[in-house]
Amino acid sequence: MLHSSLYKDTLLENVIPFWENHSIDHEFGGYFTCLDRKGDIFDTDKFIWLQCRQVWMFSFLYNNVAENEKWLDIARIGIDFLLKCGRDAEGNFYFSTTREGEALVQPYNIYSDCFATMAFAQYGKATQNQKYIDIARATYHNIIRRSNNPKGKYEKRTSARPLKSFSLPMILSNLVMELSEVLDAEEQERTIDYSVHEVMNQFFDPESGLILENVNQDGSLSDTFEGRLINPGHGLEAMWFMMDIGEKRNDQELIHKCCEIIINLLEFGWDDQYGGIFYFLDIKGHPPQQLEWDQKLWWVHLETLIALSKAYYHTGNQELLDWYNKVHDYTWSHFPDQDYDEWFGYLNRRGEPLLDLKGGKWKGCFHVPRAMYQCWKTFELIENNTNKNK
Amino acid sequence: MLHSSLYKDTLLENVIPFWENHSIDHEFGGYFTCLDRKGDIFDTDKFIWLQCRQVWMFSFLYNNVAENEKWLDIARIGIDFLLKCGRDAEGNFYFSTTREGEALVQPYNIYSDCFATMAFAQYGKATQNQKYIDIARATYHNIIRRSNNPKGKYEKRTSARPLKSFSLPMILSNLVMELSEVLDAEEQERTIDYSVHEVMNQFFDPESGLILENVNQDGSLSDTFEGRLINPGHGLEAMWFMMDIGEKRNDQELIHKCCEIIINLLEFGWDDQYGGIFYFLDIKGHPPQQLEWDQKLWWVHLETLIALSKAYYHTGNQELLDWYNKVHDYTWSHFPDQDYDEWFGYLNRRGEPLLDLKGGKWKGCFHVPRAMYQCWKTFELIENNTNKNK
Repeated sequence: MLHSSLYKDTLLENVIPFWENHSIDHEFGGYFTCLDRKGDIFDTDKFIWLQCRQVWMFSFLYNNVAENEKWLDIARIGIDFLLKCGRDAEGNFYFSTTREGEALVQPYNIYSDCFATMAFAQYGKATQNQKYIDIARATYHNIIRRSNNPKGKYEKRTSARPLKSFSLPMILSNLVMELSEVLDAEEQERTIDYSVHEVMNQFFDPESGLILENVNQDGSLSDTFEGRLINPGHGLEAMWFMMDIGEKRNDQELIHKCCEIIINLLEFGWDDQYGGIFYFLDIKGHPPQQLEWDQKLWWVHLETLIALSKAYYHTGNQELLDWYNKVHDYTWSHFPDQDYDEWFGYLNRRGEPLLDLKGGKWKGCFHVPRAMYQCWKTFELIENNTNKNK
Repeated sequence: MLHSSLYKDTLLENVIPFWENHSIDHEFGGYFTCLDRKGDIFDTDKFIWLQCRQVWMFSFLYNNVAENEKWLDIARIGIDFLLKCGRDAEGNFYFSTTREGEALVQPYNIYSDCFATMAFAQYGKATQNQKYIDIARATYHNIIRRSNNPKGKYEKRTSARPLKSFSLPMILSNLVMELSEVLDAEEQERTIDYSVHEVMNQFFDPESGLILENVNQDGSLSDTFEGRLINPGHGLEAMWFMMDIGEKRNDQELIHKCCEIIINLLEFGWDDQYGGIFYFLDIKGHPPQQLEWDQKLWWVHLETLIALSKAYYHTGNQELLDWYNKVHDYTWSHFPDQDYDEWFGYLNRRGEPLLDLKGGKWKGCFHVPRAMYQCWKTFELIENNTNKNK
């Protein structure tokens, strides 16, 4: 297949240069993420979680690909902005700021903090500077402290229907794997146990074989808009987080369970008419509330390629390879921009670009490069015939 | 043309029977609004502003079409539910409740209250019962009291970029016209003055000739995602509210200004490729944040038909009639369901149904019947040759 070189070359010759060339704010620090098709800036607001994700990405490249000082400099520009402007007095990370760094949107959830923890941990590892590790640890503990009521005073829901959301255990399951230098082993294992339990026993719905976005406190299905919601890309992304945990723990049962769920999610989420994976679906087939339900998003397809390549690497299962090839063909023929660097993020149901931006409020320097790296490394293992077919 | 009978017949033989037959919750009171194509209930949550709008609609029909006791009974079922379950201890109306009436989502904005005021005022008029008029007045004063900070503690934005939003003055301009029995004339006139000033001098952008959704405190354009946002249907809807005020006040200058803006909004918002009016656009042509930007929504097209029919009635202008015919052809050939009653709400850019629901979280018994009534009455005037061509 030689997919490894496709992913590696795209990462290093197309995707990373785009962000190096267009996103750096040399005047006020941090990164522009609202970049049009060519890389021109169309808005200057700074979304903290995207700032964090870009710090993480460049630090990660420095730690895992090459000790390129340029990458560390780019990460530092984001770290300095976050230190100066990213947090309120209690250490909670804002949702967004102006270009200059004045807070625009309050810390109304804890996703900024999750990606801040990852950013400071990777940057601390790259610089071997304890100061950043300490901030990562403090931010992590702030997340845990807030996890029972992540929206705080901004929570609009009453206690009448106390659903729990998939997002936090899902993010934690990936985040905690990055914190070997930040947490002691016992605390890390405890959070891994929690996140595996939540994902595989609470949000996994045995009847459908799918992953739910919101469940009752006991993990049962809530027959409500929120409870019926399926976000196939979210579930597929979580499956590779779980398989990474399975690999760390040599838990083959967990890995094989993930492979089953991956196939279930793809069979449920694939658009037989136009190809690609739907963004949102209702488990009972009712109309979802999300008007963007039928759109094809870059991250959904990239996270699926990571999940499928890892699943195939671990099992050698032909059905997984067939799905990989199907999603690969769709993804690589629809998302890359043939004329300029980086990928389109948002396609309509028919696979035509809905927005021609390369970055915005929700798309930054994260899913494309992370997927390129993950698939590059996984296909290197597959191609070197070291796959652990069982 | 004889459009009046098309609108009248659709209202009385198709749209109202749909809600009469499918939406009433005889067990717990109030209305189901999550109704599929055939009218079957797919979710039982109750969205307070939709409860209010249906009360308003049936009370309005009773007051303006026929003193049909069935309509008053249906309105009463909603009023009783609102009285029992709709408000918190401070008299703020919730956003949503369970089927049984337990509060689900807090009063995090004041749109529920706006439609509650309209509901209680119309129902009070229908029943000639002062109790409901008093609730309408108290709710109206609660809106005015909260209008400087409508989201209260749920406001996530800092004070760094204090934009003001078009929604409140726009809704007030329509709401206050309903309150002749509720407010004294001076207070009514004061709010009319305020809303006309806000819509025509603050949110109207003289450079583009368009209506903005969010402006700086002085009414100037904010070059930000929020500030660049255009919602053509919102602006078009506001134009018929303004023309109704112009008619009440015999302000021909206001009416003619509205007609200009209507044409500007249509020229800007019309999709030359597939027809129909876009949902959201960026005034500078940048990618909007709203992923649903290119969709064609029922209310956008219906409010436009009301605006155009009134504009043509007042002016006899051929350009307005040409636009009316263009929007009429698109709307009547795409939104009505040929097989079941009521209209589709959400089409994709190409005009195909995106969701086949007849009601949901945001679509209830309101825009379709209100537009049928408004266009019926306006075309009756036009057809009776009483149009005031100037």
